[in-house]
Amino acid sequence: MLQNCLGRYCHERNLAVNPQGGNTGMVGGSVPVFDEIILSTALMNQVISFHGVSGILVCQAGCILEELSRYVEERDFIMPLDLGAKGSCHIGGNVATNAGGLRFLRYGSLHGTVLGLEVVLADGTVLNCLTSLRKDNTGYDLKQLFIGSEGTLGVITAVSILCPPKPRAVNVAFLGCPGFAEVLQTFSTCKGMLGEILSAFEFMDAECMQLVGHHLGLISPVQESPFYVLIETSGSRAGHDAEKLSSFLEHVLDFGLVTDGTLATDQRRVKMLWALRERITEALSRDGCVYKYDISLPVERLYDLVSDLRARLGPQAKHVVGYGHLGDGNLHLNVTAEAFSASLLGALEPYVYEWTAGQQGSVSAEHGLGFKKKDVLSYSKPPAALQLMQQLKALLDPKGILNPYKTLPARA
Amino acid sequence: MLQNCLGRYCHERNLAVNPQGGNTGMVGGSVPVFDEIILSTALMNQVISFHGVSGILVCQAGCILEELSRYVEERDFIMPLDLGAKGSCHIGGNVATNAGGLRFLRYGSLHGTVLGLEVVLADGTVLNCLTSLRKDNTGYDLKQLFIGSEGTLGVITAVSILCPPKPRAVNVAFLGCPGFAEVLQTFSTCKGMLGEILSAFEFMDAECMQLVGHHLGLISPVQESPFYVLIETSGSRAGHDAEKLSSFLEHVLDFGLVTDGTLATDQRRVKMLWALRERITEALSRDGCVYKYDISLPVERLYDLVSDLRARLGPQAKHVVGYGHLGDGNLHLNVTAEAFSASLLGALEPYVYEWTAGQQGSVSAEHGLGFKKKDVLSYSKPPAALQLMQQLKALLDPKGILNPYKTLPARA
Repeated sequence: MLQNCLGRYCHERNLAVNPQGGNTGMVGGSVPVFDEIILSTALMNQVISFHGVSGILVCQAGCILEELSRYVEERDFIMPLDLGAKGSCHIGGNVATNAGGLRFLRYGSLHGTVLGLEVVLADGTVLNCLTSLRKDNTGYDLKQLFIGSEGTLGVITAVSILCPPKPRAVNVAFLGCPGFAEVLQTFSTCKGMLGEILSAFEFMDAECMQLVGHHLGLISPVQESPFYVLIETSGSRAGHDAEKLSSFLEHVLDFGLVTDGTLATDQRRVKMLWALRERITEALSRDGCVYKYDISLPVERLYDLVSDLRARLGPQAKHVVGYGHLGDGNLHLNVTAEAFSASLLGALEPYVYEWTAGQQGSVSAEHGLGFKKKDVLSYSKPPAALQLMQQLKALLDPKGILNPYKTLPARA
Repeated sequence: MLQNCLGRYCHERNLAVNPQGGNTGMVGGSVPVFDEIILSTALMNQVISFHGVSGILVCQAGCILEELSRYVEERDFIMPLDLGAKGSCHIGGNVATNAGGLRFLRYGSLHGTVLGLEVVLADGTVLNCLTSLRKDNTGYDLKQLFIGSEGTLGVITAVSILCPPKPRAVNVAFLGCPGFAEVLQTFSTCKGMLGEILSAFEFMDAECMQLVGHHLGLISPVQESPFYVLIETSGSRAGHDAEKLSSFLEHVLDFGLVTDGTLATDQRRVKMLWALRERITEALSRDGCVYKYDISLPVERLYDLVSDLRARLGPQAKHVVGYGHLGDGNLHLNVTAEAFSASLLGALEPYVYEWTAGQQGSVSAEHGLGFKKKDVLSYSKPPAALQLMQQLKALLDPKGILNPYKTLPARA
C-alpha cells in the first residue's frame, strides 16, 4: 500500500492537531502548503510486540501515544516521552519530529530511547532497522537519520522503543521563587538533593500565571511570585521520595530560594498542578495574536531574552512571557498582541534569532523547522552543516517527493 | 594541521591499546592493515569548557577518558560512560566506536548523551556541530552519523557530552544464582525494587570464576554457584539506597533466586568485587588462544548460545564461557583452546553468527566491525541497510581515505 502512496506527501507529526492546546502546528511541518498528498498512518495502529523483562515495545507508526502509554502502563512500564498532544499524536510523528516533551529531563532524547525503525524510502524500498536490541554496533546507526528529519528522508512505518519501569510514586511540588537567580539555584539544589528521582523541572513567569488565571480561571496554589517552578519526582519507593523531597523543600525555604510552595501526591492534585504549566499555550491563544518561539539557551541566560524583549517591545506587545523546560535549557518565549502587526514582527525577527545565535543557542529546541522556520536554520547551523543536509536529502530523496517545502531552506 | 594530515589514516579508538585487559583490539578497527597513515589526536587533549549547572563538558577528541572522569568528578559530576580501557582510550575514539561499557544500563547510549561534535570531513571541511544544548531540532542531527561509524565518515576532533551528577553512594552486591532462569528473575526483581538507583547488572558463569581464580588468583567472595551476578547501585542518599538494597536481597534470598551473596560499600571492596568481572578478559588471554564474540540477544535466550556451543564443541574447546552486561542484553561469549585451530574456527563460524541472526540478535553489540567483522555485517543488517551504508560512505568519503578496509564489506 505504502509503495503506491508515495506521491508528494506530508508526514503526520505530533503538532498536526492538538486539541488540548489549540496549537495548529507551531512550525507548519505537517501542514500541506501547495500540491502535497497527505499520507495517513492512522490505520497502522497495532502493537507488534512488548517484552516484559526488557520493556521494549515494537509498534506500528500510527499508534497514538496515549494509547501506547495505557498499554505499557498496564504492564508496569511507561513511555519514555509524554506531551500535551498525547491524545492525538502518533508515535511515528513523535519520532519523525524528535519530540521532546515532559519526560525529556529524566529519560532523554528519542535518539537514545528509540532502538529501531522501519522506514519506507522515497523509491519504495522498505528499510528494516526494526531491531529490539539495546546495543547494536553493526555499522552505521541508520535509524538516527530519520529521527527528527520531519519525514523529509523517509516514511517511518514502525518503531521499536525502550520503555522505563513505571515509577511507584510520583510527587509534584509547585513553588514560588523571588527571582530568576533563585530559580537557577533551586534547580542546582534539587539536582543534588533529589538526584535520580527528579523527573521534571519546569518554570513559568508571573505573566504566565496571570494569563492562565484570566483566561482559564485557574487559581495559583501559592502566593504571588515573580517566578514559579514545578518539580516532579518519580521513584520506586514512596517513603524515600517523600523524605528526599521534604529535606529539599526545607533547604530551599530556609535559604530563601523559595518563598512559598505546595506539594501533591494524589493523582488529582498532581494533574491540577501540571495544568497550570501545560495550559499556558491555551491561555496565550485566547489572549490574541501569538508570536511563538521555542529556543534552547545556556540555562543561566534563559530569561534574559524575555526581559530584553519586554524592554524592546514596550507597549507594542500585550504580553511577553517566558516558560518552559528549564531543566533542558528550553525556553518557550511568547509574545501576544491584539492583532497581527508587521511592525511587531519586524521588532521580533530577526532580533530573537540573532540574540539566540549570539548565545550559541538553538532557534528550534523541540518543534523542528517545518515550513515556517526552515529559512532561519542558518542561525543555528553553519554552512557546512546546511550543505551536508542538502546532500543527504539529495541522496535519499532525489526527486524531492517526501514532505516537500519543509525543513530544508530553498536552494540558492 | 588536520587538513594536511588527511591521507589514508586509521582513527584512534577505544580498543587500540588496552593495558588493563591485554586486548589488542577485538575487531581490529584501529589496526593499520595495508597502506594506512595513522593520525594521532593525542596532543588534542584539552578541556574546552565545563558548565557546573548543566554538567555539559566540551573537550578535544584526544582527552583520555580517565582524565576526563577525574576532571568532572572534582566538580561533582561523572562521565556517562566507563570502561576497562579508560586509562588509555580517547573520548574521540569512544564516540567514533559508540563505546558501551559499564554505565550503559543507567545512562544509555552515546547517541543520547553526546550533545555535539566537531568533525573534519574527508575533503578537509570542518563540520562544527559542537553545540552544548540538550535540545536542538534545527534540521538533521548530523553528529549521529559519526557516532559509531569507526572513523570511516569523518575525523572527530571535539566532543560535547552531558555528564550526570556524581552519585553520593555506590553499593555493589555480588551474588550466586543456582541457574540462568534465576539470574533473569533476579534481574526483573531488581529492576522493580531498586528502580532508579540500579546502575549495573553484570553476570558471569562458573567457568569464568574458575578462570579468574586459576590464572589471576582471585578468590570468589561467595559459595560456588553455576552463575554469579554483580549489581551496582548509585544514588543520592546512602541510607535510602542501603534500605532498598537490603529489602531486595532479603526478597531474592527468601525466594531462592540467590543462594549466597556479599555486599560492598567501601571503595576498596567495591573495586575488588568489580575486578572479578572486569578481569575475565585478562584471565581468558592467559588460558590460550581465545575466540571472542560480542553479541546482543533477547535476554531470555542469552545463555542458550553458550550451552549450545559447549555441547557442539565438546573436547575441541578448553573453555566455553559466557559473561557480560546482562542488563543490556549483551553477551561476551569466549572460547579458549591450547592453540589456533582451523577446525575449531570452522565449528564456531558461521554457526555463532547464524545462531545470533536466528534470534534477530546483533553480531557486534559494542565492539563494532573494524577489519575482522566487516564481512559478517549481513547477519545483522538487511541488504537495503548495507546499500545505504555504502551510499553514505561514497557521499562523505568518495576517495575512501578515511579508515579504509574497515566497517564496510568489500564491494561486490
